[in-house]
This record gives sequence, C-alpha cells and structure tokens, in this order.
Amino acid sequence: MKFDEQYSGNVFIKSHPNYDESQAVIYGMPMDWTVSYRPGSRFGPARIREVSIGLEEYSPYLDRDLDEVKYFDAGDIPLPFGNPYKSIDLIEEYIDSLLKDGKFPLGMGGEHLVSWPVMKAVAKKYDDLAIIHFDAHTDLRTDYEGEELSHSTPIRKIAEHIGPKNVYSFGIRSGMKEEFDWAKENGMHISKFEVLEPLKEILPTLAGRNVYVTIDIDVLDPAHAPGTGTVDAGGITSRELLASIHAIAGSNVNVVGADLVEVAPVYDHSEQTANTASKMLREMLLGFVK
Amino acid sequence: MKFDEQYSGNVFIKSHPNYDESQAVIYGMPMDWTVSYRPGSRFGPARIREVSIGLEEYSPYLDRDLDEVKYFDAGDIPLPFGNPYKSIDLIEEYIDSLLKDGKFPLGMGGEHLVSWPVMKAVAKKYDDLAIIHFDAHTDLRTDYEGEELSHSTPIRKIAEHIGPKNVYSFGIRSGMKEEFDWAKENGMHISKFEVLEPLKEILPTLAGRNVYVTIDIDVLDPAHAPGTGTVDAGGITSRELLASIHAIAGSNVNVVGADLVEVAPVYDHSEQTANTASKMLREMLLGFVK
Amino acid sequence: MKFDEQYSGNVFIKSHPNYDESQAVIYGMPMDWTVSYRPGSRFGPARIREVSIGLEEYSPYLDRDLDEVKYFDAGDIPLPFGNPYKSIDLIEEYIDSLLKDGKFPLGMGGEHLVSWPVMKAVAKKYDDLAIIHFDAHTDLRTDYEGEELSHSTPIRKIAEHIGPKNVYSFGIRSGMKEEFDWAKENGMHISKFEVLEPLKEILPTLAGRNVYVTIDIDVLDPAHAPGTGTVDAGGITSRELLASIHAIAGSNVNVVGADLVEVAPVYDHSEQTANTASKMLREMLLGFVK
Amino acid sequence: MKFDEQYSGNVFIKSHPNYDESQAVIYGMPMDWTVSYRPGSRFGPARIREVSIGLEEYSPYLDRDLDEVKYFDAGDIPLPFGNPYKSIDLIEEYIDSLLKDGKFPLGMGGEHLVSWPVMKAVAKKYDDLAIIHFDAHTDLRTDYEGEELSHSTPIRKIAEHIGPKNVYSFGIRSGMKEEFDWAKENGMHISKFEVLEPLKEILPTLAGRNVYVTIDIDVLDPAHAPGTGTVDAGGITSRELLASIHAIAGSNVNVVGADLVEVAPVYDHSEQTANTASKMLREMLLGFVK
Amino acid sequence: MKFDEQYSGNVFIKSHPNYDESQAVIYGMPMDWTVSYRPGSRFGPARIREVSIGLEEYSPYLDRDLDEVKYFDAGDIPLPFGNPYKSIDLIEEYIDSLLKDGKFPLGMGGEHLVSWPVMKAVAKKYDDLAIIHFDAHTDLRTDYEGEELSHSTPIRKIAEHIGPKNVYSFGIRSGMKEEFDWAKENGMHISKFEVLEPLKEILPTLAGRNVYVTIDIDVLDPAHAPGTGTVDAGGITSRELLASIHAIAGSNVNVVGADLVEVAPVYDHSEQTANTASKMLREMLLGFVK
Amino acid sequence: MKFDEQYSGNVFIKSHPNYDESQAVIYGMPMDWTVSYRPGSRFGPARIREVSIGLEEYSPYLDRDLDEVKYFDAGDIPLPFGNPYKSIDLIEEYIDSLLKDGKFPLGMGGEHLVSWPVMKAVAKKYDDLAIIHFDAHTDLRTDYEGEELSHSTPIRKIAEHIGPKNVYSFGIRSGMKEEFDWAKENGMHISKFEVLEPLKEILPTLAGRNVYVTIDIDVLDPAHAPGTGTVDAGGITSRELLASIHAIAGSNVNVVGADLVEVAPVYDHSEQTANTASKMLREMLLGFVK
Repeated sequence: MKFDEQYSGNVFIKSHPNYDESQAVIYGMPMDWTVSYRPGSRFGPARIREVSIGLEEYSPYLDRDLDEVKYFDAGDIPLPFGNPYKSIDLIEEYIDSLLKDGKFPLGMGGEHLVSWPVMKAVAKKYDDLAIIHFDAHTDLRTDYEGEELSHSTPIRKIAEHIGPKNVYSFGIRSGMKEEFDWAKENGMHISKFEVLEPLKEILPTLAGRNVYVTIDIDVLDPAHAPGTGTVDAGGITSRELLASIHAIAGSNVNVVGADLVEVAPVYDHSEQTANTASKMLREMLLGFVK
Repeated sequence: MKFDEQYSGNVFIKSHPNYDESQAVIYGMPMDWTVSYRPGSRFGPARIREVSIGLEEYSPYLDRDLDEVKYFDAGDIPLPFGNPYKSIDLIEEYIDSLLKDGKFPLGMGGEHLVSWPVMKAVAKKYDDLAIIHFDAHTDLRTDYEGEELSHSTPIRKIAEHIGPKNVYSFGIRSGMKEEFDWAKENGMHISKFEVLEPLKEILPTLAGRNVYVTIDIDVLDPAHAPGTGTVDAGGITSRELLASIHAIAGSNVNVVGADLVEVAPVYDHSEQTANTASKMLREMLLGFVK
Repeated sequence: MKFDEQYSGNVFIKSHPNYDESQAVIYGMPMDWTVSYRPGSRFGPARIREVSIGLEEYSPYLDRDLDEVKYFDAGDIPLPFGNPYKSIDLIEEYIDSLLKDGKFPLGMGGEHLVSWPVMKAVAKKYDDLAIIHFDAHTDLRTDYEGEELSHSTPIRKIAEHIGPKNVYSFGIRSGMKEEFDWAKENGMHISKFEVLEPLKEILPTLAGRNVYVTIDIDVLDPAHAPGTGTVDAGGITSRELLASIHAIAGSNVNVVGADLVEVAPVYDHSEQTANTASKMLREMLLGFVK
Repeated sequence: MKFDEQYSGNVFIKSHPNYDESQAVIYGMPMDWTVSYRPGSRFGPARIREVSIGLEEYSPYLDRDLDEVKYFDAGDIPLPFGNPYKSIDLIEEYIDSLLKDGKFPLGMGGEHLVSWPVMKAVAKKYDDLAIIHFDAHTDLRTDYEGEELSHSTPIRKIAEHIGPKNVYSFGIRSGMKEEFDWAKENGMHISKFEVLEPLKEILPTLAGRNVYVTIDIDVLDPAHAPGTGTVDAGGITSRELLASIHAIAGSNVNVVGADLVEVAPVYDHSEQTANTASKMLREMLLGFVK
Repeated sequence: MKFDEQYSGNVFIKSHPNYDESQAVIYGMPMDWTVSYRPGSRFGPARIREVSIGLEEYSPYLDRDLDEVKYFDAGDIPLPFGNPYKSIDLIEEYIDSLLKDGKFPLGMGGEHLVSWPVMKAVAKKYDDLAIIHFDAHTDLRTDYEGEELSHSTPIRKIAEHIGPKNVYSFGIRSGMKEEFDWAKENGMHISKFEVLEPLKEILPTLAGRNVYVTIDIDVLDPAHAPGTGTVDAGGITSRELLASIHAIAGSNVNVVGADLVEVAPVYDHSEQTANTASKMLREMLLGFVK
Repeated sequence: MKFDEQYSGNVFIKSHPNYDESQAVIYGMPMDWTVSYRPGSRFGPARIREVSIGLEEYSPYLDRDLDEVKYFDAGDIPLPFGNPYKSIDLIEEYIDSLLKDGKFPLGMGGEHLVSWPVMKAVAKKYDDLAIIHFDAHTDLRTDYEGEELSHSTPIRKIAEHIGPKNVYSFGIRSGMKEEFDWAKENGMHISKFEVLEPLKEILPTLAGRNVYVTIDIDVLDPAHAPGTGTVDAGGITSRELLASIHAIAGSNVNVVGADLVEVAPVYDHSEQTANTASKMLREMLLGFVK
C-alpha cells in the first residue's frame, strides 16, 4: 500500500503525473457568469473528469491508445465569481504560460466566452492562425445588452482580432440577422446547419496552417447534448461530431490548441453530455496531439 | 420606470400586446384528462412560453424575423378539469371567435383531442380543407374503451367530418390493425414511418388548397422529445421536422391554422422538448403566417 | 370572450392589475452571477409565480384572504448578466421609485446579494430601521476572494450601513469564525441554529420600530428546501418558518418591506421549494401588509 | 423450477394468492382526471406495489409480522380515462362486492375523489360510521369550477351523506374560508395543522364505533412526500403519521376499511413517497386488520 | 367482478397465462453485480414490463399482432445478490429447463454477463449455432481486473465455447486494442461502428443456421438509450436497431433464442430506454417466434 | 503559476497533502455489490468529496476549524467488482496498515458491509472496543438468502466477534423479528426509533472506553437522506444526527475510528444527501480527532 502522495482521483483518465514531461495540458475554465439563459457550465470540467473513468483508453476510430500521448491535467483555473474582466485576464495569462512551455492547450469550459482569451493567447504565439468553430450559435455579437464580455461575443472578438476571413464556423443554426450579415460582408465562413460536408471541403484550403479548434457542445442536437445552457433543436449527431474531429485529425492542418465548452451537468440526469464530452476530448487528444 | 401595466412576462416571446392589430393568435389548450398512459401535457403551453425567452427572434432557415409577424398570445383557454365534453365545446367556440375576427389560430396542447374541435371550427370557415398530420400514432380509433372523446380519436373524427381522403398523416408508427385498414379502405393517406420524402410528394397535389397542420410532438423520436405522454422508438429527428415545416412553408398550400400538441414537461428534466416545441412554433409563425 | 388585453398568466396569484391602486408591489431580482457554489436562482421568481396557481387564496393561519390585500406583480427587474455593479445600482433605483410611491416592497431573489441595495433604499426612507434576517449563513464577509459584491457579503454591508446592533440574524449554522467574532464584537445579534424561540424573545424589544425582513430560503433544512444554491444540513422545518412569519405578523413591529431569496428551481425536481416559497410569500403579504 | 403459473411479481409484498381465504383486499384506484393542479396519481398504486419489495415484513412498532394477516392484492380497478361519473360508479360497485364477501377494503389512490364511492359503500354496510381523515386540504367544496365530482369535494360529499358531525379531519392547512366555516357551522371536526395530539383526544370518544380511515399522503410535509399532486409546506413528519396510525390501531375503535391516496410518483425522483406509502400500508394492515 | 385469482398486473403486455401452451417464454435476469461503472440494470426487467402497457399490440412494421404469438412471462429468475458464480449456474439450469420444454427463450437483463450462461445452454441444444451480437462494446476480455466473470467477458466466453468464427458483432465502438486484435486473429466478425449495412451482407451467409441474438441496449446512441450503465457517444438510432431486427426476421436464419440487456432505469427520467426496450421485445416476439 | 504537480482537485476539502504528517486518513470503500435493493453507493465517496467544496471550514457547533486537524485523503480503496470476499480482505489489510501507522481511520461507503472488515481490524488494535451504530436497520442477519457476506450482516458479524454486549445500536426501525430477539437474548443494546435521548444515557457508561462509530446515512428520515439504497420512513432529522455526533464528541469516550456509509447519489437529484454526509464528516473530523 502506498500512502505517500495526496489522492488525485478526479483527474482526466490516464493523465500524466508530470507537467514537464507532458506534451499537452488539459485544464478547466469553470466560468458561467455572463450567460443569458441557463447557468451551470462552471461544473462542466469537474463532471467531465469524473465520468472519464468510464472511457476505454483505446480509440478504435484512430487506432491509437491514450498511452501514446502524454498529457497533464492541471485542474481548474481559479476564477473570481461574477467578474468576467479579471477572469478573462487570468485565462490569457495562464495560456501564455502553457504556450511558453511548449504545451498543447486543451481546455474545458465553462461558457464560450472563455475561448476568447485562449484564442488571443494562441494568436500571439502562432502566425497565420485559423479558427475552426463548431457551434449552434454565431457568437458574433459586439455586445449583449451593453456587456461586451458575454457568452455571445467570443467569435466576434477573435474574428476582429485575427481577421474574419480566418474564422470558419460550422453547424450554426441560431443568431441575429445582423450577425449573419456581418460575417458575409467581412468574408468570414459560416456553414449554416451543416458540419461534416463543408468541413471536408474547407480543410484542404487550410493545409499547412496553424489551426485552433473550438467546440461548443451545443453544436450537437439536444438529443445528444441535453446538458448545456441553450438547447436548440436541429443539431448534428454525436457520430457526425466524431467524424468531424477525425476529419481534422486526418487532414494536413497543424492543430495548435483546442477546447470544448458549455457542458452544464445539472440539466442532464443521465450524464450523457459529460460522457460524450469526455469521449470527444479523448479523440481530440489522440487526433490532435502528434 | 414604468409600472402602469400588469406584468406580462410569461408570454410567447415577442408576442404583440394588441389583439386587434395581430394577424395570428397563439393560445394554450391545457387539457390532458382523457390520456390513457402518462398525463401532464396540461402544463405544456406554460412551459413552452417560459422557455421561449431562450429563442433567437431571427430564423436563419427562413431568413425572417419575429418582428415581421404580428401575433397575440391569448393565454390558455380555461377548461373544466375532468370534463372532456365541456372542454371540447369551449375550444370550438373559442376558435369560432378567433376565425370570425380573421385571425390565424396557432394552438398549443394539451393532449391531441384538443385538435378535434379546432379543426371542426376551421372546417366551418374554410372550404375544401385538407389536414396535414404529423404523429407517431394513427389516432383513428372510434373510441377508447368506450369513450368516444379520447386522445386516440381526433383524427378519426375530423376524417369522418371532412372526408378521409382530405387527411394526410405522416410518420405513423403505432396503431391498431383496424385503424390502418380503415384508412386504406377509405382513401385516407398514411405515410408509415416516413415524413419528409412523402410530404414533398404530396404537397404539389395540395397546391392552392386550404390546409390545417397538426403536429403531435411524438412524431419525433423519444431522443428528440422525451417529454411527452407516449414515447415510441423509431421516430424522426428534429431536423426532419424542421425541414417538413419549411417544406410546407415553401409550397403553394394556404395554411389556415396549425397546432402543436402533447408536450408534457415533467418527463423531460433537460426541458429539450419544450425548447424544441418553442422553436417549431417560431418556424410555424414565420413560415405559415404571411 | 375577451381578447382586448395581453395575456398575463404568469403573475403571482391574485395580483392586482393596477399599480396605482396597490399597497404592495411584488417583483423579481433574477441575479445569480456572484454565487460561489451552485447557480440557478435567477429562475426563482419565474418558477415561484408559475407554481403560485396551486395556492389557496385563504390563509387558515391568519384567517385572511388574498382579496383583502392589493398587490401588483411588477415582473422581474431587468438586470445585466454578469455585471453585479450595474445590477446593484439598478435595484436600488427601482426600490427608490417604489418607496417614493408609498408601496410595500416584496422582493423575490435571486442570490442574497440583491437584498443589499433593497435594504439600503429602505434605510434611506425609514428611520431607525432594524433588519430581521433568516438564513443558514452569516453573509458577513467583507469580500469573497477579493470581490466585495458577493452573495456572502450583503448582511455585512447593511450592518455597517445602519449599525450592527440593528441587525438580528436567526438560524445561522454556517460561516467563518471571523464572521461570528465580528458580530459579537460589534453588538450584532446572531441566534445560532435556533429561530422561533429567540425571535419571540427579540420581537418585544423591537416594538414600534420599522423592520425589514429578509429570508434566505436555506434557513430551512435541505429536506424542506432542496432547490437552493447551498444545501446545508441541520436547518429548521417549514412549519417553524411559517410560525416565525406569523410571530412577526402578530407583533408590534412595523414591517416596511421584505424579501425571500435563493430559490434555485433546477435542483428540485418535485418543485417543493418553489411551492413553499410561494406559500411563505402569501403569508408575508397577508401578515405584513396591513 | 416451476412454470405452471403466470408470473405475478408486482403485487404488494407477501399478499396471499387466494381471495376467499383472505381477510383483507388491497386494490388500486388509478384515477387522476379531475385534479386541478398536477396529475400523475394514476401511477401511484403500481409504484407502491413495486417498491413494497424493499419492505421488511415485520413491524417493530406493532411487533407483528405480515405473515399474521391474510390479504389479497386484487390489482387495479379498471377505470375509464376521463370519465369521473362512470369511474365513481364502478368503484362503488366494486367495494359493494368486497364488503358482501366480508373483506376489509384497503385502497390505494389515485386522487382523493376515489374515496367518496368507497366511503359511500362502507356507509351502506356499517351503521354509525365515523370517518377519520388525514389531509392538508379540507376537500369540502361543493364543486370545483362547476364540477361536482372533483378531487376537492369528497369529504363534503361523505359529510353530507353520513352527517358532518361524524367526520373528523386532522392536519388541515389549506382550504377556502367557506369550507372552514361550513365545517364549524355543521359540527364537523377539523384539527387545523395538528394531527397526533387532537387525534389522541378524539379517539376515546369514538370507542366502539365503526371507523373508516382515509389518508391523503399530502398531510405529510412536502419534505416527507414530494411525490404528490399538491405540495403544501407546513405538514407533519412521517414519524407523526406512523404514530397516528398506531394510535388508531391501539384504540377501541373498530376500523372497517381504509385508504391512502394521492401518491404521484413522477414528482419524486428518490421514490421516497411511494416507499413511505408502502410502509404506511404495512402498518395499516398490521394495525387495522385483526 | 372476478376475485378468484391473484393479481398479475406487471407482466409483459398480452403475455399468455399458461406456460404449457406458450411457444416462447419471457424472463428477467436481474443481476448487475459485476459492472465496473454504473449499476442499476437489475431493475431493467421490472420497468420494461411496467411500461409495456403503453405499447400497441400491433406492429405496422411486421403487420403482425401480439395475439398471433403465445408467450408466457415467467417473471425474474431469483439470483443471489453479489454472487456471480451461483447466478451464472442458476441461469444456465433455468434455460436448460426452458429448452427441454421446447420454448423459445427471450431474456431481459441485467448486465450482459447474464447472456453467457444462456448462450451456453442454447449451444448445448442447437448444433451449428451462430451468435448475432449488437453492442457498443466488444465484451471480449478474458477477465476484468482479475475477475473472469465480468460484464466485459461474455462474448469472449461464448466465442471460445462455440468458436470465434461463429460470432458476429455489430456496432462496436469501444474496447481494448487487444480485444479487436484477438477477434481479427481468430476469425471473429466485428463490424466497427456500423450495424444495418454489414448485417444485411452477413445474413445470407447464415441462411439455414441456428442463430441466437443478443442485444446490449447501449448499441444505441446515448440519445436513444440514456438509461444504461455505460453511455458511449456515436451509436445508432432506434430506427436502425428496429430495421436490424426486421432484417433478421425477414432473413432465412433460424432464430432459436434472444435477449436484450443493460437497461438501467434510474439514469433515464423520461423512461424512454425502458419504453424502447419494450418495443424492441415486441418486434423480437413478432419477428423471431414463428 | 504552478504546474509542478498533478492536479488533485477532488479531495475532501482542506485535506492535508502529506500522509506522514496527518493524524487521520479519510478513504472511500466504493462497494455496493451485495445490496438486495437499490445499488449505487459505490459512487458515494466521489460525490461526497466533490460537494465538500461547498462546506465552510469552520464549525460553529464545535467552535473548531478544519485547519486545526490534519487529515489526508487517501482516495478510494480499489475493490474488485462483484467479489465481496476479496473486497473484504482488501479492506481489512488496508485498515491494518493505517492503524499500524497510528492514523485515525475515517471511512466513506459504499454499502454497510464495508464496515465489517474495518471494525475487525480496529478490534485487533484496540482492547475493550465498543461500537456505536446509527442505522434504520438492525443489520443482524446471519446471512441474506444464503450469502453470509451481505449488507444485512455486518453488525451481526462484529457483535459475534467482540461480544454483543459491546454493540450499541440507535434509531433502528426495520429488521426481522429474529434479529431483534437475538439482540435481546444476547445483551446487545438496541434503541428502537430513538437516537439522541438513549445515546445520552449510554455515553456515560462507556466513559474511558475505545469506541468505533458507524453511521448508516439511512438512520436519517428519507426527507433528510433520499439518496440511499433503502429509504425507510420514520427516521430522525439531520439536526438530531448532528447533535448525536456532538454528544459523542463531548463525552469521555475515546473514539478510535468512524465511518459513514450508504450514500447513493443517483437517487438524489438535489444532492442534499452527499452535502449532508460531507457536513457530518466535517463534524466527525473536528469532534473525534483530538
């Protein structure tokens, strides 16, 4: 029996005990204070870790095992409740550190706003960055009822930061007319409703580029992800999202970071959403971290 | 600050404050007392209204905004608990009034029996009426264990009233052999299991006709609508139901009224069913009310 | 049939349609963005209204009927998601207006921080104000991890504003040692664990004074209020809370406003918490508004 | 292995296979179509039977074992959905048969209206009948929005039938002023809020009389019975209800029948309400059937 | 009124009262003690029976009615809690008896390990047996953390017993690399991810052979079967599983027994999983029992 | 930022990072495979840790802070699914190690059978051991349907091991007649139904003795602990259990170890049971570890 170390049960399955030796770092961003509808995604990272013990370590899709990737579970970034400004700054700083150490950042939300400071940090390090964005919502507002830092604005912010033509959104089925119009006028790619087919067309045009992948779990139909803030009918299946991750993994883009956000466990009694998220993260680790 | 009016928070999102100026009227029929299996659809209309605040007002499917349609939320029709006879009469009277005022009736159930008096009233006003019916169940019984007014009989009643050949059912995957036989013998259309493909074939044959659309939410697979009285495997996705509404909206039929019934919130912890229903109603408003 | 007015179903039962003629105003403060544990109280006011239709209008405890009090349901104060500073200011302004019009304010939370601007506004109007506070928690922190506006600070704020000796807390079973010490050193009353007995002793000493009553629903044991952010064992029963409200109603204090906060419906499948809150509000209306 | 009989798993635990040899008969009345608030008690009897397998067969309260009483589980009375008139008649007929055969009737609801025809049948057979009634609600309305057969009227009906002075209600905490007044004016006993203490005072006055006991599970506080149609704060504990059953069992009254109604499983995820009901029924069998 | 028999309500709908006259026997195997993740499938059989009352008796897929098949519901096999060795033996003995009497065995799990003794018994009686296996998981481990009797081993056991080349698995999306490798090396068929298309290719090659069909409900996507021990994204729809059953029913194989396992009701508030399972069982009865 | 250690978020709040420096060790025993009714307590320890972040670190009951006790969270003992014999042996060995190192063992269940090997190990080290046992059930069976290792037998086992007169059970409200008789005949103390009053009488008689405290959470009424395997009406409140822990803490007995078992999170949507358990464990740490 070995009692010489603090118990560390609730880490993402098979995560490596040593930061320095790891290629990737998985971390939570437990923030949900700007959401306009149903809060609760602050508990997403903890629940995803908890249910990850139910995962097989081998992917029959990619024929690769979690043993083949070294990743460190760094826990949740401590964020100040109700203060989005400080939270955003803390996340950016945190990612700057990870990137300085040469780690692949794999984030778990929290609301989608957390992706904004991550992408900003990634854009500092990687030239010619493109964003691949899976979501039910455009997230292209300039503000939400006057608040610039809102779960409705992260894609607008990164689009303005790196140029709208470098942002590719898939599966969008909800937004204001102004958002769709802005995207069109500014050369940003939006695939309405569809995901896998347009993705397969876009990927070759991104060959060789640095790409950050951000997945809002609500790109899935509510049938496949009931545990999220905004459940919006007409989404894709979990099979299609898996296939999309595999399409990216099998393409010639250079994935430099990724996240999966908006898992809110309290709305999902069966915990299928957290379980599905943990499987997607496994595939992202196995497919994106070479 | 304005305190000069009664609070009216729980109305369907963006509904118009004035009845006279409105083209359409949305109303609830909170009745569930004849159901043979799981009750609870009486709370469907209230919950659909409540979650409608999570809806975007713009439809990227139809490129139309709720601002472009004027509809009044008239609340729920007060119905006497446990008395289907009086309830049926009250609904018919109510719809008569709406139609006299030239309004487009958009109803929310409640059990499916509520559609019978609505369709009867609509048939009085509109000649040459056809019914487009989405459902898992035939609803063609003459009675249920001796009770003629039952959630299993509304389509039989309207079929006998306007002629079976004017009724078109889609997605049917449950019923007694006698019901399927009756439909066949009497020239009523039933698409077993399938919805969108046969609908697209039928719509041109209905060009120019007055059509009432009745949607039992259980036409969806239980994965997409767990919150309903009878969950029956093998249904369609919410994407296919959206596409079906859009197919009708884009056809040459003249939709003169519609309803969506059988949302029973208590069986759906994630509230995806009520959210999905509210989105379907938005698309019906934007697609059917010209 | 009458279609001349917007539907107004989801108001607190029997609320009066006219603001000017009403003695009291009931309103929601749907804010939960500073909570450190489980969010969701933003939906408390809407759900309390919804279930209030299940209430009898007569109180056999007070032998009084809701017909005997005129109160207006003003809906929810629109608050900016994720911005506690603006929210606090908006609430204070709102209450200032109500008080200027001579209304009795009866608020529904939302997290407990919302009570701070209400009490501040009430203290501007009423001299010699005392606070009666029911809660599991002291809420006496100066800040929570650096944030001064937190669900853990409202009682500290009002205590410093009107003087700690004017604040009476009952049922407290959770807090930091520093909070209990601060209360003791500054002459603030805290009844640890107990509610009804110490309340009955205190009330005569407050005779003739203006009193504001603030109830955090978690003063109840989790058995009686599972639907709240922080469930903390060892609380009182709903019978004891009812008796406490009745003790205040039957005393010689002059209640000038009240609130009930921290109902978070998503954690309570049976909806007993919202139902219990609606009954408490009925008793507060009948007992406090003369 | 024995395959010679149809499986009969879902019967109340330890029920006797032979009707003729049984002293008591346990039966369900799965009706909920007149309830004004939350339906679902139609599934009460089935769920109570299902969870009864978790019961110990021995009562340490009464020092008696289920082996010492012979009772037959007759299943649910088949009732026509949505037709209270026929349902009421069928129940009365059914009880007439049981009583003719000399059985002790022990009923499971369903809504409280089902007790009316049972009590009527019992009053035909037993002279000088008294009713002991545990409930949160008076149930003394003459009608509910015009409907005479309603879950709000059964106690009024039996009170008028056998004389109000023969009806003893305990634990009542909800009703219209008119109902309380009617009871007072007509000499009917109502113990407001309290149960065990007044019951102990009343029981000696009923010595030697025939008594029917009807328990609405909502006499319990929602903490103890969340799975019921109307959850109303301020009720008693399950310990007090157990003690009340034991007080009757230990008194000199002659219990000639009993029921327990209003268990609605869907509102109680933990199934504590059905489990509690099954324990109460065990104590009723062991305490009332001599 | 008929009181001459014990109530037998909770049997699978329309099951026949006489064992001897029945062609098929439906029985439960309420065991879940070796599962490594979420237990609860012991309650699967009882809940499937309970919800089967919501089924129509006629299948529009097969144009056949439950009246046309005689099946006896034998209840659950009593199994010793926590003892897999004895449980396995008891099941095998039980099936031996059924087969000796010439019955078609239709089992309900319980965890998947229960299928092992059933298949073993079937293999004793029927020469040249093939297994058709629907599952998310390979279930091909030799042991689970040292325990040979585990829910992860049943397919390995039967494959070794009758020869791996006689086992056909469909829909597999989870397992260890070693399991997939073992299958490949030993000539066992595994269709990864896909079900209906490869099944249609395989069926003609099995023409005339005796086939046992075992369905782990988790072959369905979690959207379609949230109520199971291991929810694993990327599964098939209930439509595809229905079509697969119909493909077997319409083929030239001779189905000699079947089961459906791993329904765990507590994880599925809407009860869609149990409802879906009951429909699958109806189709298996109508399609497999000639 | 510090990335030099593996994340260790899901430990019991404020647990100490170093085993050697700790006075007490908290550990989980995630076993539930012998339960006869509802499984799920294997997830109790993980959920209790998870919700412990909502605890205050200071106890106003004991005026002591978690900073004043050093305890190490050793995680869950890895136990072989479905094998009670090996599990029991592993637990005993584990506790032997802890005791050899002079640690105070504080265990979290899991089913109650896990307490048997713990108590056996404790009895090896400490002379003159007495057991204080809080439970709804006697747990005095010799076997359960032939299985000697069952959740119904642990108290019988320890009673036979250290002598029945050294075992004191409180709050018992369920069991077989034989169990109560055995206790009486053998001089074992059982307080039926009551807890705090008899405990206060017994404690002085145990002054100076070594005592192990085992708490089955179902000693609480289902209202206070719905999340457990067997919910049995008529239990005590969480206030009384807190007071009982404090009574032991304030007495002259020498507590040498303790556990709290049978928390099964899936049956408790509000998570009040896990939250209550975490508070009880805090009080046990602060009250028992000197």
